Amino acid sequence: MPRSFDRSPGDMRPIEFQRHFVRNAPGSVLVSFGHTKVLCTAIWTDGVPNFLQGKGQGWMTAEYAMLPASTNTRKQRDRAGRVDGRSVEIQRLIGRSLRAVIDLKKMTERTIWIDCDVIQADGGTRTASITGAWLALHDCLTAMQAKRLLREWPLRCQLAAVSVGVVGGEVLCDLDYSEDSQADVDMNLVITSEQEFVEVQGAAEGRTFTHSQLKQMLDAGDVGAQQIFAAQREALEG
Amino acid sequence: MPRSFDRSPGDMRPIEFQRHFVRNAPGSVLVSFGHTKVLCTAIWTDGVPNFLQGKGQGWMTAEYAMLPASTNTRKQRDRAGRVDGRSVEIQRLIGRSLRAVIDLKKMTERTIWIDCDVIQADGGTRTASITGAWLALHDCLTAMQAKRLLREWPLRCQLAAVSVGVVGGEVLCDLDYSEDSQADVDMNLVITSEQEFVEVQGAAEGRTFTHSQLKQMLDAGDVGAQQIFAAQREALEG
Amino acid sequence: MPRSFDRSPGDMRPIEFQRHFVRNAPGSVLVSFGHTKVLCTAIWTDGVPNFLQGKGQGWMTAEYAMLPASTNTRKQRDRAGRVDGRSVEIQRLIGRSLRAVIDLKKMTERTIWIDCDVIQADGGTRTASITGAWLALHDCLTAMQAKRLLREWPLRCQLAAVSVGVVGGEVLCDLDYSEDSQADVDMNLVITSEQEFVEVQGAAEGRTFTHSQLKQMLDAGDVGAQQIFAAQREALEG
Amino acid sequence: MPRSFDRSPGDMRPIEFQRHFVRNAPGSVLVSFGHTKVLCTAIWTDGVPNFLQGKGQGWMTAEYAMLPASTNTRKQRDRAGRVDGRSVEIQRLIGRSLRAVIDLKKMTERTIWIDCDVIQADGGTRTASITGAWLALHDCLTAMQAKRLLREWPLRCQLAAVSVGVVGGEVLCDLDYSEDSQADVDMNLVITSEQEFVEVQGAAEGRTFTHSQLKQMLDAGDVGAQQIFAAQREALEG
Amino acid sequence: MPRSFDRSPGDMRPIEFQRHFVRNAPGSVLVSFGHTKVLCTAIWTDGVPNFLQGKGQGWMTAEYAMLPASTNTRKQRDRAGRVDGRSVEIQRLIGRSLRAVIDLKKMTERTIWIDCDVIQADGGTRTASITGAWLALHDCLTAMQAKRLLREWPLRCQLAAVSVGVVGGEVLCDLDYSEDSQADVDMNLVITSEQEFVEVQGAAEGRTFTHSQLKQMLDAGDVGAQQIFAAQREALEG
Amino acid sequence: MPRSFDRSPGDMRPIEFQRHFVRNAPGSVLVSFGHTKVLCTAIWTDGVPNFLQGKGQGWMTAEYAMLPASTNTRKQRDRAGRVDGRSVEIQRLIGRSLRAVIDLKKMTERTIWIDCDVIQADGGTRTASITGAWLALHDCLTAMQAKRLLREWPLRCQLAAVSVGVVGGEVLCDLDYSEDSQADVDMNLVITSEQEFVEVQGAAEGRTFTHSQLKQMLDAGDVGAQQIFAAQREALEG
Repeated sequence: MPRSFDRSPGDMRPIEFQRHFVRNAPGSVLVSFGHTKVLCTAIWTDGVPNFLQGKGQGWMTAEYAMLPASTNTRKQRDRAGRVDGRSVEIQRLIGRSLRAVIDLKKMTERTIWIDCDVIQADGGTRTASITGAWLALHDCLTAMQAKRLLREWPLRCQLAAVSVGVVGGEVLCDLDYSEDSQADVDMNLVITSEQEFVEVQGAAEGRTFTHSQLKQMLDAGDVGAQQIFAAQREALEG
Repeated sequence: MPRSFDRSPGDMRPIEFQRHFVRNAPGSVLVSFGHTKVLCTAIWTDGVPNFLQGKGQGWMTAEYAMLPASTNTRKQRDRAGRVDGRSVEIQRLIGRSLRAVIDLKKMTERTIWIDCDVIQADGGTRTASITGAWLALHDCLTAMQAKRLLREWPLRCQLAAVSVGVVGGEVLCDLDYSEDSQADVDMNLVITSEQEFVEVQGAAEGRTFTHSQLKQMLDAGDVGAQQIFAAQREALEG
Repeated sequence: MPRSFDRSPGDMRPIEFQRHFVRNAPGSVLVSFGHTKVLCTAIWTDGVPNFLQGKGQGWMTAEYAMLPASTNTRKQRDRAGRVDGRSVEIQRLIGRSLRAVIDLKKMTERTIWIDCDVIQADGGTRTASITGAWLALHDCLTAMQAKRLLREWPLRCQLAAVSVGVVGGEVLCDLDYSEDSQADVDMNLVITSEQEFVEVQGAAEGRTFTHSQLKQMLDAGDVGAQQIFAAQREALEG
Repeated sequence: MPRSFDRSPGDMRPIEFQRHFVRNAPGSVLVSFGHTKVLCTAIWTDGVPNFLQGKGQGWMTAEYAMLPASTNTRKQRDRAGRVDGRSVEIQRLIGRSLRAVIDLKKMTERTIWIDCDVIQADGGTRTASITGAWLALHDCLTAMQAKRLLREWPLRCQLAAVSVGVVGGEVLCDLDYSEDSQADVDMNLVITSEQEFVEVQGAAEGRTFTHSQLKQMLDAGDVGAQQIFAAQREALEG
Repeated sequence: MPRSFDRSPGDMRPIEFQRHFVRNAPGSVLVSFGHTKVLCTAIWTDGVPNFLQGKGQGWMTAEYAMLPASTNTRKQRDRAGRVDGRSVEIQRLIGRSLRAVIDLKKMTERTIWIDCDVIQADGGTRTASITGAWLALHDCLTAMQAKRLLREWPLRCQLAAVSVGVVGGEVLCDLDYSEDSQADVDMNLVITSEQEFVEVQGAAEGRTFTHSQLKQMLDAGDVGAQQIFAAQREALEG
Repeated sequence: MPRSFDRSPGDMRPIEFQRHFVRNAPGSVLVSFGHTKVLCTAIWTDGVPNFLQGKGQGWMTAEYAMLPASTNTRKQRDRAGRVDGRSVEIQRLIGRSLRAVIDLKKMTERTIWIDCDVIQADGGTRTASITGAWLALHDCLTAMQAKRLLREWPLRCQLAAVSVGVVGGEVLCDLDYSEDSQADVDMNLVITSEQEFVEVQGAAEGRTFTHSQLKQMLDAGDVGAQQIFAAQREALEG
């Protein structure tokens, strides 16, 4: 089966970053992985949550939501007490992943809010979110540094998230929606530019996978992550 | 006081419409009134609410929300039962306004969902929403007509919304955020291309206004509406 | 079509105010506009909301609700997170309207709570609420003055709210429920005894209205407001 | 200590019933026990809850709430998911009590909604509610009978609720707020005109009571109930 | 009809207490009344609610819930704003009952949380909860005393709760589920080891009961309470 | 550092299963991993969710909660709209894991509800939950088979969940709470008795991990899973 954007099994879809997409946020990036588009913003506010007060360090938290028109059938908003378990899971993943590469002790008592709002969904919204949010966070920290709100530069390295999966027996990188809905296994990898893992999340709804498949997926993820790191660097320099 | 975009008291800010902004929605328009940007989408689903079932007509409803990074200080999401009264008021206005220019009896038993999500806020988000939503609705209806889901073309005419106000004694059209926050009176007008009113909403938080000021604001609204109608026609033809 | 209470198009229904309806509230008025009856109460509490603390001024807020048996078909209560958009809209209107005629800086750091609970609904509950709440507020302020809780008398003038509309081509004042449900246009005017506007809210569900109709409705509202001001003065003196 | 309204320990406060207080409800009674005033309404709707569908019988349910200005310090409304445990308890008691004297099988598949809204609270709101609701129910059933919506007359007998308590060692009937707040024991009795019990609820917040005190309170309740039955009969005949 | 566990009308089911059931709570008791099993825990935390701050005394509150598998048909959890009125009523009863035998002024500013979670339900879960919670509270207070967190020993006496009822004309003690579902009257008694009442709650869903039946039920409750007090003492000594 | 229960780095804590812990559920198991105790129950109900109706197959879903006294500091209940993101994540994991080893098409149109309620928490509650829930599910299916509610036996194989982690540079199996709180990396593995993976979830709050550490943790998980499978088989045979 041919892949969208004429790509081989190990390729990412075209990656684009539109920095400074929103005027009011110090960091704001519209990230595209092919047709998947997520607006990632980073904003700081004064103060930290109760459990950190007086410790002289910062905090970072994340929220994730899909716009109603981002999916094929209209997605209801998370209002009035209804809870979307999938959104809760994804925003916890985004927050945890970014916190792995930032040294909150090098910040002052400020909270960075990461918001990932899916404009258009075609598979891989959580990996695009993490990848774009890293860039928004970088821009936000740069603005904070300019205002002397950091003790030291707190970001350790780059961060990328890749989805890999097994479709029809073949290991694919960066699945789009049509591939994802046929996948036997679905794995999300969060990887640093120092080649270490932050998160490894593999699941097989209604199925299982072997040690050998796991190894192939980890390898495919490494290759995809290199493509992302290159795109991030280009966006920062561009 | 000079106005943004070098405009005179009676001028709208630059109006832009990016049609087909999102692939999954039959109607989707990113509307800009200067720095105010709202993504307006229109999606149809089968069926109508209970109170209309079996009457052989359609329905249309609207929702409005602001992305967290759209404002100067981060806007909290409407989750977990918290109710933002302002959002409720605005989405009811959007729905009512659009229903004034569509003949729901010419639709079949389908519901059109209008979603207005503010990407960037700089005053006038409700007027931009109505203006952009009209265009998204037009595109959605065109798609429905192509699928033979309409009995007849149901849209009666164009629809525009304009904010007018009194700032420092002067009547201004299309206030941006800095003007709005100094305004003595704030009025939103929803007007059809047949020169009739759909909504007239004038309020003066902590103040009052005279009959003469009301008349000047109504006149200014008429002028602004003509600028909007021209921009909508250009977008449809372009 | 003959109007209820044998009145002409420009007449209000009989207006009654029962002051001191409830013992525990410093201001409490049962207002009747014909068969529409609303219990309006005004209570002060110490302190102001966070955003005003330390500014040495007062605050006023309003809530509106309908008793379950006030309408023809039982009205469900606003409990357990369900949100009634119409109630939200009305209580915001009540609060805004009253704040236009009170100088909060002449109060001390206290909050006045206005509660409007509809006992019986027959059209015009929001205009009756504002009209009765003004009287309840007056009684509450008188009680506060007696306890020396005001710097100066803060109420600038009287406040009246009138509904006007177009029914079968004719402009009517103070529509009852049966008129309201046939109205082509429905407008609520909030007017001060100094002949200025506080709010002008005209809407046409599923229709539009002309400049000429707007003018006629504004004129009819002025006439109705005079009838209300007279009734308020009589109640205060009685 | 002298009692309000110059009454002896075994006396009820003056009991008043204003029938037909609200036009839209088939049963509506403003009941007063001295200064305690509750608006009790009874409305029927077609159909019954799921668990009774197809059984050819009726249902009855009750809701209880206090208006914000009914108490000395403003009572917050039960909105937005906040739950007032006391209200839940009282409305369950009202429903259970009335269901004990109505034969739901003699109704057709209709639901009667009892609403008790406290206008002014001075102790005994739950006993006034049950007592007034019985009369509203009676009027509602009379209206249903006139429309041939009942198989047979379903009300078995009259129903009264009395509060009794021990204050300063003395057993009192129908405690007002100032007595209630000093009471060592507080008991609510729901009694039929056939001299049988429907509910016996005695509690002693932070204390206990003896068998002998229990017996005296039960006796006092019987006496109070007779005063209520007489007042109800007079209201029905009047 | 023979009763479960071969018992006579006045007998309790076998009563068992497993103390120290959970390691993390200072008081934790798995109480069984026959097949009814409730885990009762008592935990203290520092501080008291707002209304008691600075008064130098303690507080105690209770929560009650049923595990989903405790009943014959799965019991839905109380999540997402849904309110189970019965649970609210029971947990208020538990808290009130225990507060009647503890002198909160002999505690320091600490709050004791009583949690009663029903593991298996076969009638009488509220009486088993109160009975077991008293023991958990005793163990919790013992631990607090050891840490010198009490001024004096605050527990006045033992506390027992018994359900009694009328089934087929006969007065029974400690009804199991099959008896409870056929009962004409159902009464819960909370009694101290000093032979005084804390709560008397008798109800007859859809029926009534006589003075004579009330007397018999009160007597049966006294007998049952003695069996409970003996079992509690044995557990404390064992 | 010596490990609890005198075990080596690759050892599980003592595993115990108490089957038939609750009478009302067809499957109910109290599972212990050392001091961690979870009550896992499995109940079936008729019917399936909307999205599966008419497809002639079954469904299975899971819920997870902690009792308030299960943790060192009291755990607040998930009531009144508050959302615990961690619980949502865990119950989605439990459901997905079990669905990987059951063929829902071999069931009839029934839903199995898995409930995991933590009685005592000492690390590894999610792995104990999955491990115990598999046994409860097995018992539930056996009961369904006896009632001829299955087309064929739908369970493919055994299922075990193991936590592994890196603590002080050493890879440990089945971390207890004190180890978990010092761990650099924390990984949960869900593994079938056919040696395949169902879920691989590794995370490093605030840190990263290497390919080599990942490999060692996967190996340790395999060893732990064998210990679990043996214990499950023994429980089923015992």
